[in-house]
Amino acid sequence: MGVRLDTLKARLAEIADLQAAEAVLSWDQHTYMPPAAGQGRAEQIATLQGFVHRLMVADDTRLMLDGAQDEVADQSPDDDGRALVEVVRWDVDDSLKLPESLVVERARTGALALEAWSDSRSRSDYSRFAPFLRKILDLERQVAECRGYDVHPYDALLQAYERGARTEDLKKLFGTLRARLTPLVRSILDAAGDPAHLPAAVYPTPVQEGVAHRLAASIGYDFQRGRIDPTVHPFASGITRNDVRITVRYDKHDPLKSIFAVLHETGHALYEQGMPESFERTPLRAGASLGVHESQSRLWENLVGRSRAFWGCHLPALRADFPDALGKVDEEQFYRAANVVQPSFIRVDADEVTYNLHIILRFEMEIALIEGSLAVEDAPAAWNEKVQSLLGITPPDDRRGILQDVHWSMGAIGYFPTYTLGTLLACQLWESALEADASIPEGIAIGDCSRLLTWLRETIHQHGRKYLPDDLTVRATGRPLTAEPFLRYLDGKYGS
Amino acid sequence: MGVRLDTLKARLAEIADLQAAEAVLSWDQHTYMPPAAGQGRAEQIATLQGFVHRLMVADDTRLMLDGAQDEVADQSPDDDGRALVEVVRWDVDDSLKLPESLVVERARTGALALEAWSDSRSRSDYSRFAPFLRKILDLERQVAECRGYDVHPYDALLQAYERGARTEDLKKLFGTLRARLTPLVRSILDAAGDPAHLPAAVYPTPVQEGVAHRLAASIGYDFQRGRIDPTVHPFASGITRNDVRITVRYDKHDPLKSIFAVLHETGHALYEQGMPESFERTPLRAGASLGVHESQSRLWENLVGRSRAFWGCHLPALRADFPDALGKVDEEQFYRAANVVQPSFIRVDADEVTYNLHIILRFEMEIALIEGSLAVEDAPAAWNEKVQSLLGITPPDDRRGILQDVHWSMGAIGYFPTYTLGTLLACQLWESALEADASIPEGIAIGDCSRLLTWLRETIHQHGRKYLPDDLTVRATGRPLTAEPFLRYLDGKYGS
Repeated sequence: MGVRLDTLKARLAEIADLQAAEAVLSWDQHTYMPPAAGQGRAEQIATLQGFVHRLMVADDTRLMLDGAQDEVADQSPDDDGRALVEVVRWDVDDSLKLPESLVVERARTGALALEAWSDSRSRSDYSRFAPFLRKILDLERQVAECRGYDVHPYDALLQAYERGARTEDLKKLFGTLRARLTPLVRSILDAAGDPAHLPAAVYPTPVQEGVAHRLAASIGYDFQRGRIDPTVHPFASGITRNDVRITVRYDKHDPLKSIFAVLHETGHALYEQGMPESFERTPLRAGASLGVHESQSRLWENLVGRSRAFWGCHLPALRADFPDALGKVDEEQFYRAANVVQPSFIRVDADEVTYNLHIILRFEMEIALIEGSLAVEDAPAAWNEKVQSLLGITPPDDRRGILQDVHWSMGAIGYFPTYTLGTLLACQLWESALEADASIPEGIAIGDCSRLLTWLRETIHQHGRKYLPDDLTVRATGRPLTAEPFLRYLDGKYGS
Repeated sequence: MGVRLDTLKARLAEIADLQAAEAVLSWDQHTYMPPAAGQGRAEQIATLQGFVHRLMVADDTRLMLDGAQDEVADQSPDDDGRALVEVVRWDVDDSLKLPESLVVERARTGALALEAWSDSRSRSDYSRFAPFLRKILDLERQVAECRGYDVHPYDALLQAYERGARTEDLKKLFGTLRARLTPLVRSILDAAGDPAHLPAAVYPTPVQEGVAHRLAASIGYDFQRGRIDPTVHPFASGITRNDVRITVRYDKHDPLKSIFAVLHETGHALYEQGMPESFERTPLRAGASLGVHESQSRLWENLVGRSRAFWGCHLPALRADFPDALGKVDEEQFYRAANVVQPSFIRVDADEVTYNLHIILRFEMEIALIEGSLAVEDAPAAWNEKVQSLLGITPPDDRRGILQDVHWSMGAIGYFPTYTLGTLLACQLWESALEADASIPEGIAIGDCSRLLTWLRETIHQHGRKYLPDDLTVRATGRPLTAEPFLRYLDGKYGS
């Protein structure tokens, strides 16, 4: 490695350390921080973000980057050093496009809007949130103008979450999905009897915690480099590759919530723990995109975690954990309870068939709001109409409608589509994994998930952020992303 | 407040935020960090310290400081703005005296030596630690030369922990203490029968945790702005005044350990929670010195926590917590168990009479090692001789001798005397508090510690780091620090 690349990497290491510190502060905020410490924490995080931004756009950082770029110019495109320089160039250019005043205004608005949203949602009072949403949309339009775009301002916003994604492509993709999913939901509902549920009982939280630890470990989570804590909203946090934490919410009346939350978050965590040591303290130690990240969580949660093979192996231990409640539940009952399909108001509680209809709704809303073809004051009614047309039900209030998600209050417009991209990619990866190693399902059935993990490590994890999501998809599966594997999976599972 | 002072305060707020982030990272390291994350954490903390140092010595910080100094020049010495400028001037000057290379070398050596010490201690193998101690002493001599001093290099080292302390004064003070404590210990041992102990039993950790929470709350700890977690080494961490955390170690065979640990750490925490809101994000939000900080912990642990009045109120609840073990223990038995005097090898387990003999030993060792009159290879033997002469016992190995404390491995030479200064100040404050409000003991006896806390808030806490420790002592008690109140306290308690 050259001297000038080393100089750049020393600067990147400082930036990465500040970001790791911010990640610890954020994890702490969601887990153990005392109630009165919130205001100070917001200031600490803003200060760290400010230093990161200043370092990114600093003159000497750009000189270091220019020097390193000269040095790696002759390397192959697969060279880690060259990939690093390209990623940093993109990050620096993107930081330079946004004036610091806009960055600060977004951070401040986000903090205030988050509070307003939380209050607004608990009272189901959209009018309290509306002025903040208007301001956020205005700021995001400014961001889009600063970044620049060829076709649609939404294209510019997508880049922060899914580099290379285009609004037109997503419209086509979501059109296909909508056309195929709507009749599938209807036919499942027509065919189904009463939805299957686990027996009503108290499933004690400490026992559920033990289950969460066992399941995470069984699919490959390394507790030497991670831990699981309780929170209100489950998340995974990759502070470094050696410090990747999961949080889970426990509902003592429903063990499936914590079971699928932990499998989902462990999927994210396995990706973070699977980054190469050599990417540590550089921006290559990150997921290729939010969509690719979500593919990992969905794969473990749904393709593995909602399969008969997985529970054939894990149900006996679960029965032993909850002998009174589950002693008489057989594999088929459990499988059906884990795979109930039913239209519902709340995205995060949705099953894997209806889930993407929730995303289509948000995608269409965001486009209309950013374009200005939908006014902020008309948004709740538009939301409810879309729920009716997509799911056949109408939210009784805005709390279970437009106010349910935190994302917009944080200024994240263009984020939701990555959930669907991840879901589709999970199925495409699954097909390719099985082509590469047909013994993967057998492994899962005997509690050995390492065959699948090994394949993911090699095709996805070890590359970190080195390749763009589209390129990584082609490298891993031999073809661009399509909805077909996902639709085949749903047909196979729910078609009959 | 003037414009230029505001400008300085904006810079100080950034520095304070980085230090708060470092404090969270450090707290996390000692509580919940996954085992394999240590190397990355060391880098993150070093990076944050590096930014703090760079900001402290930056040209624009000094220009801001000069500007603010002009602006507050005409204010009274009691003015907060003027005090702030003086504290920052001292901090900046001190940072400027130490070249960054020395700062980095100390940080690096500290990290390596800590690991070596831990290993060395567990194997009771001094030879593994000796080269690191030699290096640390060499670095600390360099620090002393950089800082400068009139009489003794140890004076320069003391300033980092206790501004204004002088080696000569400490020698006199410790001489007095030694002369008075040695015969007292002998007479107590001669008079005492078998030491009193609580009944041998298992005292379950969850119950001890409940006790720790109740005791902390009872003396005024605000859980909205803090929390208690388990660790190996108890400590208190003041991240901000609204985020002050305590850690406690639980020994299921000995509830007194966690009880006195939580009272001690809560004493520190009450100081941090008692800082004025207006000092937040400035260097005034800190203890006046380590000695003053320790006075708060010792006061609550010993003067309050080991008193008959306190347990007259709290023993019934404790008996109810451990009915089998403590059901038949009366107040006198409990009081005696909480106040056993017995020479021992380990400082942190020492009673309040012999404790300061452990400090005298360390003070004499440090002076000799820094002067070079004692060679590193001869230090274990010198240690053991001193233990024999001070306490009448000889450590069976270096683990229970020279290797017991973490401080030297962290490069903290000159830190130990603050433990004794704090112990003495605690007693001097206690006398003054009782002069000001004679009803304080009655309050404690009925579970109302707020009278004492109110007095401490007014005389100590609200001033943060505004006054030098000697000045604060005179303001609070009307006289400079002496050993007499402490010796009077011991005579009154153990003399008969």
